[in-house]
Amino acid sequence: MEKIREKCGVFGIYGHSSDAAEKIVCGLTALQHRGQESAGIAVCETSGAKGNITFHKGMGLVNEVFKDDSLKTLEGNIGVGHVRYSTTGASNIANAQPVVFNYLKGTLATVHNGNLINTEELRSELFSDGAVFRSDTDTEVLATLIAKERAKCASIEEAVRLAAARIRGSYAIIVMSPRKLVAMRDPAGLKPLCIGKCEDSWVIASEDCALKAVGAEFVRDVVPGEILTFSEEGMRSDTSLCTGNHAHCIFEYIYFARLDSKIDNVDVYSARFKVGQALAGAYPVQADIVTGVPDSGLAAALGYSEQSGIPFKLAFHKNSYLGRTFIKPTGSERKHAVELKLNVIESVVRGKRIVLIDDSIVRGTTIANLISHLKNAGALEVHVRISSPPFLYPCFYGTDVPDNSELIAKKLDTTEIRKRIGADSLFYARLEDIERSVGNLPVCKACFDGHYPV
Amino acid sequence: MEKIREKCGVFGIYGHSSDAAEKIVCGLTALQHRGQESAGIAVCETSGAKGNITFHKGMGLVNEVFKDDSLKTLEGNIGVGHVRYSTTGASNIANAQPVVFNYLKGTLATVHNGNLINTEELRSELFSDGAVFRSDTDTEVLATLIAKERAKCASIEEAVRLAAARIRGSYAIIVMSPRKLVAMRDPAGLKPLCIGKCEDSWVIASEDCALKAVGAEFVRDVVPGEILTFSEEGMRSDTSLCTGNHAHCIFEYIYFARLDSKIDNVDVYSARFKVGQALAGAYPVQADIVTGVPDSGLAAALGYSEQSGIPFKLAFHKNSYLGRTFIKPTGSERKHAVELKLNVIESVVRGKRIVLIDDSIVRGTTIANLISHLKNAGALEVHVRISSPPFLYPCFYGTDVPDNSELIAKKLDTTEIRKRIGADSLFYARLEDIERSVGNLPVCKACFDGHYPV
Amino acid sequence: MEKIREKCGVFGIYGHSSDAAEKIVCGLTALQHRGQESAGIAVCETSGAKGNITFHKGMGLVNEVFKDDSLKTLEGNIGVGHVRYSTTGASNIANAQPVVFNYLKGTLATVHNGNLINTEELRSELFSDGAVFRSDTDTEVLATLIAKERAKCASIEEAVRLAAARIRGSYAIIVMSPRKLVAMRDPAGLKPLCIGKCEDSWVIASEDCALKAVGAEFVRDVVPGEILTFSEEGMRSDTSLCTGNHAHCIFEYIYFARLDSKIDNVDVYSARFKVGQALAGAYPVQADIVTGVPDSGLAAALGYSEQSGIPFKLAFHKNSYLGRTFIKPTGSERKHAVELKLNVIESVVRGKRIVLIDDSIVRGTTIANLISHLKNAGALEVHVRISSPPFLYPCFYGTDVPDNSELIAKKLDTTEIRKRIGADSLFYARLEDIERSVGNLPVCKACFDGHYPV
Amino acid sequence: MEKIREKCGVFGIYGHSSDAAEKIVCGLTALQHRGQESAGIAVCETSGAKGNITFHKGMGLVNEVFKDDSLKTLEGNIGVGHVRYSTTGASNIANAQPVVFNYLKGTLATVHNGNLINTEELRSELFSDGAVFRSDTDTEVLATLIAKERAKCASIEEAVRLAAARIRGSYAIIVMSPRKLVAMRDPAGLKPLCIGKCEDSWVIASEDCALKAVGAEFVRDVVPGEILTFSEEGMRSDTSLCTGNHAHCIFEYIYFARLDSKIDNVDVYSARFKVGQALAGAYPVQADIVTGVPDSGLAAALGYSEQSGIPFKLAFHKNSYLGRTFIKPTGSERKHAVELKLNVIESVVRGKRIVLIDDSIVRGTTIANLISHLKNAGALEVHVRISSPPFLYPCFYGTDVPDNSELIAKKLDTTEIRKRIGADSLFYARLEDIERSVGNLPVCKACFDGHYPV
Repeated sequence: MEKIREKCGVFGIYGHSSDAAEKIVCGLTALQHRGQESAGIAVCETSGAKGNITFHKGMGLVNEVFKDDSLKTLEGNIGVGHVRYSTTGASNIANAQPVVFNYLKGTLATVHNGNLINTEELRSELFSDGAVFRSDTDTEVLATLIAKERAKCASIEEAVRLAAARIRGSYAIIVMSPRKLVAMRDPAGLKPLCIGKCEDSWVIASEDCALKAVGAEFVRDVVPGEILTFSEEGMRSDTSLCTGNHAHCIFEYIYFARLDSKIDNVDVYSARFKVGQALAGAYPVQADIVTGVPDSGLAAALGYSEQSGIPFKLAFHKNSYLGRTFIKPTGSERKHAVELKLNVIESVVRGKRIVLIDDSIVRGTTIANLISHLKNAGALEVHVRISSPPFLYPCFYGTDVPDNSELIAKKLDTTEIRKRIGADSLFYARLEDIERSVGNLPVCKACFDGHYPV
Repeated sequence: MEKIREKCGVFGIYGHSSDAAEKIVCGLTALQHRGQESAGIAVCETSGAKGNITFHKGMGLVNEVFKDDSLKTLEGNIGVGHVRYSTTGASNIANAQPVVFNYLKGTLATVHNGNLINTEELRSELFSDGAVFRSDTDTEVLATLIAKERAKCASIEEAVRLAAARIRGSYAIIVMSPRKLVAMRDPAGLKPLCIGKCEDSWVIASEDCALKAVGAEFVRDVVPGEILTFSEEGMRSDTSLCTGNHAHCIFEYIYFARLDSKIDNVDVYSARFKVGQALAGAYPVQADIVTGVPDSGLAAALGYSEQSGIPFKLAFHKNSYLGRTFIKPTGSERKHAVELKLNVIESVVRGKRIVLIDDSIVRGTTIANLISHLKNAGALEVHVRISSPPFLYPCFYGTDVPDNSELIAKKLDTTEIRKRIGADSLFYARLEDIERSVGNLPVCKACFDGHYPV
Repeated sequence: MEKIREKCGVFGIYGHSSDAAEKIVCGLTALQHRGQESAGIAVCETSGAKGNITFHKGMGLVNEVFKDDSLKTLEGNIGVGHVRYSTTGASNIANAQPVVFNYLKGTLATVHNGNLINTEELRSELFSDGAVFRSDTDTEVLATLIAKERAKCASIEEAVRLAAARIRGSYAIIVMSPRKLVAMRDPAGLKPLCIGKCEDSWVIASEDCALKAVGAEFVRDVVPGEILTFSEEGMRSDTSLCTGNHAHCIFEYIYFARLDSKIDNVDVYSARFKVGQALAGAYPVQADIVTGVPDSGLAAALGYSEQSGIPFKLAFHKNSYLGRTFIKPTGSERKHAVELKLNVIESVVRGKRIVLIDDSIVRGTTIANLISHLKNAGALEVHVRISSPPFLYPCFYGTDVPDNSELIAKKLDTTEIRKRIGADSLFYARLEDIERSVGNLPVCKACFDGHYPV
Repeated sequence: MEKIREKCGVFGIYGHSSDAAEKIVCGLTALQHRGQESAGIAVCETSGAKGNITFHKGMGLVNEVFKDDSLKTLEGNIGVGHVRYSTTGASNIANAQPVVFNYLKGTLATVHNGNLINTEELRSELFSDGAVFRSDTDTEVLATLIAKERAKCASIEEAVRLAAARIRGSYAIIVMSPRKLVAMRDPAGLKPLCIGKCEDSWVIASEDCALKAVGAEFVRDVVPGEILTFSEEGMRSDTSLCTGNHAHCIFEYIYFARLDSKIDNVDVYSARFKVGQALAGAYPVQADIVTGVPDSGLAAALGYSEQSGIPFKLAFHKNSYLGRTFIKPTGSERKHAVELKLNVIESVVRGKRIVLIDDSIVRGTTIANLISHLKNAGALEVHVRISSPPFLYPCFYGTDVPDNSELIAKKLDTTEIRKRIGADSLFYARLEDIERSVGNLPVCKACFDGHYPV
C-alpha cells in the first residue's frame, strides 16, 4: 500500500510503582499506528541507590518485541518508550530507539519524534569534538548534543534548553536521566505531545489516545517550545523558549493521528468529518452512495454523506490479518494482493454511482486498483474526492513523502490523474477548507503550498 | 473479548501449476476470520509417478505458520488447507488439520469444518476394529472412517459417500488423495462450501471471499449433501445423498461469515443491513446517532440508521495491532484492556443519545464495558439493539457457545440484562426478522429456539 | 563425517515424584550419542484420576527440544523418552518418538530402538483391518499392533507378549500406559536395555551411562526376550519368550555405545582396548607414536600402545563447537571443513612414523583426508589399523550402513584401499579378535560375515 | 564448571573475493574456545565507491549467530570478527564486538582482546570532551580514542599509534576502515596475535589454529608493539613502539590456547606435555594409571605418564552434547550434574591407584567432585597433580580470575586443600618448571607471583 509515512510515537511515564514498562507497552500499543518498524523501552527505578537504566528494543510490533520475557527484565517506576517508522527502505536495529548511553554525568535515555533540518551541521560539529555515532538518526545527534551541553550546566532540563537553542526542525522528545523525565516540543509545535495524569503518575505521549490506554486523564497539550521536567517534586514547566509562532503539522489531522485523538484542542474525527462536508459543498455530484477507503477515508466519507444527503455505505471489507510478514505473492497471485487486503462488497456497489473518499493520492496505483475493482463489481460510476490538496512539495520535518518522480501530482494535472486512475470525476479538498476544518489552528501546510515555517 | 466461535475454514484447489500451496495461503488468509489457532496445508503433484503428499501445519495465523521456508517445501498442483479455532481453552498441534495418513490404498489428507454428533459411537466402533487416534477431533474419526470404507469400494468418492451415510452432524469436508479432491457438504447444509473456477483450476472454499483472493470466479454453492470429485477429468457431482431438507446455520449471516461473502445466494452485508432495518422498525427510539460495535455491528447499524433516519457515526476506534500474543495486562492495567482494543471517539458521543448495535450478547461483560465507556465519554443515553435473538440453547453442530452458566440470557430476563449492562433500553432482533433478512432461506436456528434439525 | 549410524536411545522411569520429565531429560542427554535428529518425552501422573499422558517432541538435540517452557508442561511421575537418528536423509517430525495415541483401552506412549524385518507384512495386515499410519516408522506399526492385541487380552504386558510373538527383528521397547511401564528386549538381545534403581524409582535405559546420569544404580541387563512390567506393585518379570539364542550387536562395542557403558556384562572401554591390543599383536609395525581418531578410536589406540610399547599421543584437536547447524562452507572453504573439525597437532606428528587407529572405514574419504593432513604436517609414515573387520553385508536390524555402492570394502580389496587412502600400511581387526574382545559373548556379526541370526 | 576465563578471540582478513564473512565464520569457529558468549563480524568491500561497512553480532556461539540469512547480508572482501567471554555474570548484546561507528573521517570497526588498566582515566578524559558510551567495555573506550586521534593525523595506522601511546594494559586489536585493516599487539605481548597468508589474502588471528581453518599458512607472530597495516599495497609494519620488554601471558600455554596452537614459537601441546613430565620428576608417586581431566589436563597427563612410566588411561567420558543452554537441574538432579558432563569409566579405575592431572584449581569444587566419583567407582587412591602453581594474585590484563574470597588457594594451604578435595596427595607445578616448559620465553606470571609487568 502506498502511503505517506510518519516517523515515530513517543511515550514517557513518571510513576511510583515498578511496572512502568508494562504501562509503556500499553501506551506504545495505542501509538502503534505511528510506527511499526521497531519498538523500544528504557526504564529506571528512581528509589534505588544506583540509578540503573535498563532497556530493550527490537524490530517489529510492540507485542512482538515485548513478550513476557523481555518485559520481566525491565523493572522501574519511570521510563520512556518509542515506536518507529523507517524513512528509508532499509530498516536497522541500530536506528531503533530509545538511544541509551553513558556520558560524563551518568546515563541518558532519549526518544524522539521529528526531524532536524540542521542535523548535518550539528553532526559535523560533534564529529570535530571527537564524537562517534552508531546510527544515522537525528536522535543520536540530538542526544549527544544534550549530553555535551549537560557538561556545561547544572541540570538535564537546562541541557535540553541549551540544545534546543541549537537545533532547528520538528521534535517531540523525552529524555530520561536516572531520576527525572524531561519532555520538550519544538517551538513551532510541528509534532504533537500531550500530558496526562493517573493518580500520582505523570504520563507524556504523542497522542492522547495513549493516555487512555493506561487509564490516565488528559491534562493538556505541551505548549510548543515548552520544557517539562518530571521529578519527585512533580511537574515543572519552563516556557522560556516558547514563541507563539505555531505551525502544527496539518497531516496529523488528515492522516497520521488516530481517529479518536484530539491534538492541540482539535478533534481528529471532527476535522476529517468537516473536510468531507466541505468536499460535498464544493464538489457535489449525482450519486447513489458515499463510501471511504478504510480506515482513514471513513470519517470524511461520513461528512460527505451528511452534507450531501447521499447515504453512506461500507463498500470494502478490510482483512486485518494480513500482517507485516505476509509472504509477497509471486506470479499470478500478485495481481490479487490488493483484493486480499481490501475486497469490494459487491452487493453494496452493483449498479450504483459511487462517491469514493480517500485521504490522499501519492503514486495513484492503489486508488486506480480500487476503482477498477469497484467497476468490476458493477459500480456504474466512481467519483473520487480526496480529503487533502495535492502533494507538491517535500517535507523537511519528518514526513516521508516519496520523491518527486513518484508523486503523481508533480507529473500530471488533475484531469490527467483522473484519467489515469479511471475515475469519473476527481476533486481534491481546497487548502482553505482544510484549514477551516481545524478551526484555523496555525498549521504547517508546506507540503501543499511550499511555505516552510522553520 | 467474549464471542461465539466458529470452528474452521477449509480450502481446496485442483490446479495445473505447482504453486497450489501459494494459492492456498492466499485463500486461507481470506478465511482467517474463521479460525486463528492453527493453520495447515497439504499438497500433491498429480503428474508425478509417486503421488507424494507433503504437508505442513502449525499453531498461529496463516502468515506465521507459512513463512517462505515452509512454503518452499510444499510443491504440488493440488492441495487442501485449513484454519482452525479451538473449541476448548487448550490448543494443541495434534488437533491441527489437515489430517494426513497412509492407509490401505495410499495416502489421504482431510480438512473439515463442522461437528459430528455421533462421534463417540463411531470412535468406539473404530476402536473395536483396532483403530488408534492421535487427537480428540471429529476430523480424525471421520478421516479414519473414510479410509475404512475405501477398503470396501472402488474409489475415494465412493468411500466418502459410504462414510457420509454413517455420520450425523454438520460438515464441509475436502479429502485429497494423490490424484483427486473430493468435497462434500452435509445434507442439511449447516456449513457453507462453494465452488470457484480460475482458468482451468477448480477451487473449493468455505466462503466465496476466498475465491476472489486467488482470482477465481464464483461458480455456485455446493448443494447440501452433494459430493464433488475433482480429477483430471474435471468436476463430477454426485447428488444421491441430497435430501432437500436444508437448515443453513443462521449464525453465518449474523456473525461468522465475512461481510463481503455471499452464502447460499444470500448476501451477508444485506442480511445484516436488513436486520438493522427491522430493529429500527420494531424498536424505535429517540436518539441523536446510531453506531455499531466494530466490526460485526456496523452493517446492522447502517441499516438501523437508514430506516430510522438517525445519522450513523463511528463511535469507536479499533486498534488492529493488538495481536493474539499481546501480553495480558496485570494489576491496574487490566481494567483498561477493553479501551486498548476499542476506544470511544469522545467528540462523536459527548452530549448525544446513542443507539448502539451489536451482533449478540454472550456473557454481557463486553457490552457493559462499552456502555460504561460511552457514558464516561459524555453519552447521555445508550440504547442497545442486538441483531440476533438471545442464545438459549447449546449448539451441537460446531459453534462454540459458552455453557449455560456463562450465558447471561439463561440467567436473566431482558429487563435484568438491561440493568446489568447499564443500557437505557435493550431489544433483541426477533427471530422472524432474522429469517426474513435471509429471504426465508431454510435455516438452523436451534440456538434460539431449541429445534434441532439433525 | 561418514559414519555408520545407530537409530535410537530409549529411556523410561517409574518414579514417585512429579519430576519424571526432568530426569528423562538427563537420561536422554546421556544417550544423545545414539541419536541427534529428534527427541521426545511422554509422561503421566499415576496418582491422578484421569491418567492423562502428556508429551512433547521436536527436531534437534535434547537441550534444544526441552527448554524450560516445554518441560514445565510435562508433569508426571512416570514417563518414557527417546532420541532418534534418521536412517534416511530426510528427517521429519512425523517420525519422532514417542508414538502416543488413544485406542480402545485408553492411551499408550511407545518408544523403540531397533528394526523389524517383517514390518511390511504387519503393516499390510493392519491396513487390511483399517489401520492408518502417520509415519513410515516400524515403531508406529509395532505400537498399533500392541494396541490391537490389547483388545484381546487382559493387560498391556500381555498385549506386548502377544505382539512380540508376531514381530521379528531387533527391538528394545518401552510402552507406557497411564499406570504402567512395560519394557521388552528382543529374544536375540540385538539391542541393549538395562535396569536401574534409584531409591524407590525404577529406571530403564539403552545404556547404563544413562542410569548414572539420574543417580540410579545399575541393577542388571534386561534378559533377551524378557518382558518387564513396572507398576505400583514394583517390577515383575515375564521370561516366557526367552530362548537362550542370543546375538548381541557387535557394533555397540565397536562404535555405538558410550565408552563408559557396560552392556551385557561386557565393558565397552575394555573391549575396544583389547581389540587395540590384538591389532598390535597381529599387525605390528615399526613406529614412533600411536594415536586414534577422536573420540571413538582412542581406546583401541591406548590398547595398541600398551601392547606394542609405542607411546600414545594426541595427534588431533577436535573442535567441539561445530554444531549440527554449522553452515556448509562453499567454494574455497569446503576443502578445509575437515580441518575445522579435526586439526592435526603438528608438533606431535612432525618427523614421526605414526600408527593411526580408527573404528571403521565406510567410504574412505575421511580417513584419506586425515592421512593427508598428517603427512602435510610432517608425518613420515601413517600405518592405519581399523578396530573392526571390513563391512561387507547390509544390516537388517537397524544399523544404517550405506549401500554397497558407497562401501569402499565392497569395491576394493585391502591393498587397493590402502593405496586409495594413502596409508603406508592398512590392516583390519580379525573377526576372532573382535569376538575375543567381548569375552566370546554371543554376537551378531552379520555385517562382517553375512550370517544373520534372525 | 569452575574455570579461569579468557576474554576474547579476534580475527581479521584482507582478501580479494567477496566472501570474507564466510572465512571469518570459519576462523571464529576455530577460536570459539576463547569466548562463547557473543560473536560478531563486520565486513567491507574495498572496491566499491562507498566503502560501506556492514556488520552483524549476537549472543551465542558462532554457528548460532551466523546462520545463512545473516551471512548473506555481509558482503565484502575485508573484515574483522570477534568471539567474546563475559567477565561478569551479566551478558549483554551492548558489549558484543565489533564496535562499529561513524566518526569525523568515516567509519571504523574495532575488535579487541585484552584489558586496559587505565580505562577509567581515558574514559573520564573522553567524557570531558563530550563522548558518550553504549557499553562498559574497554574496547569502546579504545575505539573512541583512536577515532579522536585520527582527527589529528594523516592515517588510521597513525591514529592507532597515537592511541597506543596513551593506553596501558594488554591488547590485541584489529581496526578496519573501509579500505584498510590495522592490527596491533601490546608492547609486552601479553595477548597473542599472528599473521597468515592464503594466496594473496592476509589473515590475522589470535591463534594460528584459526589460520589453518581458512587454509592460510602461518607467516609469523606479530611482534609485541608492532603495528601492521594491510591495504591494497600489501602489508606494512611499524615497529616504532616495540620495546623488547616482553611478558607473554603464561596462561595461554596452561589453559587458554588450543592444544594445536603455537604461540610466539612455543608449541602449546609440548609445553603442557613438559609440565606433566616435570610434575612426574618433582612429585613422583606409586600408582597404577595416570589420567587427565578432559580436555585441558590430557597433554600434561601424557607427559606425566611418559616420564613416570605409569600407563596413561582415559578415566572419564565427556558428554559433548551438554550445550550452554542445558536446563539447570533442580532438586535431586543437581548433584548428578557433574556426572552428566564427565562420567567415570569404572572399568578403568576400579581397584587402581590413580594420578589425576588438572590444569588448575579455582574454587576446588569440581576436582573434589571428580575425586569423589573416582573413589565411588572403586579407585583406591587419587593423587592430584596440578599443571600450574596456585593462583594467588588478581589479573589486571583480562583474565577473569574469581575474587579472593572464592580462590581456595588464598584461604587454605596445600595440605588443607588436599584434605578438602579428598585427594591422597596434591602437588602443584613449580613456577620454574612452567617457565622451562615454554623454553624460558619471557612471560607474565603475575597471577602466581604478583609481579606485574605493566
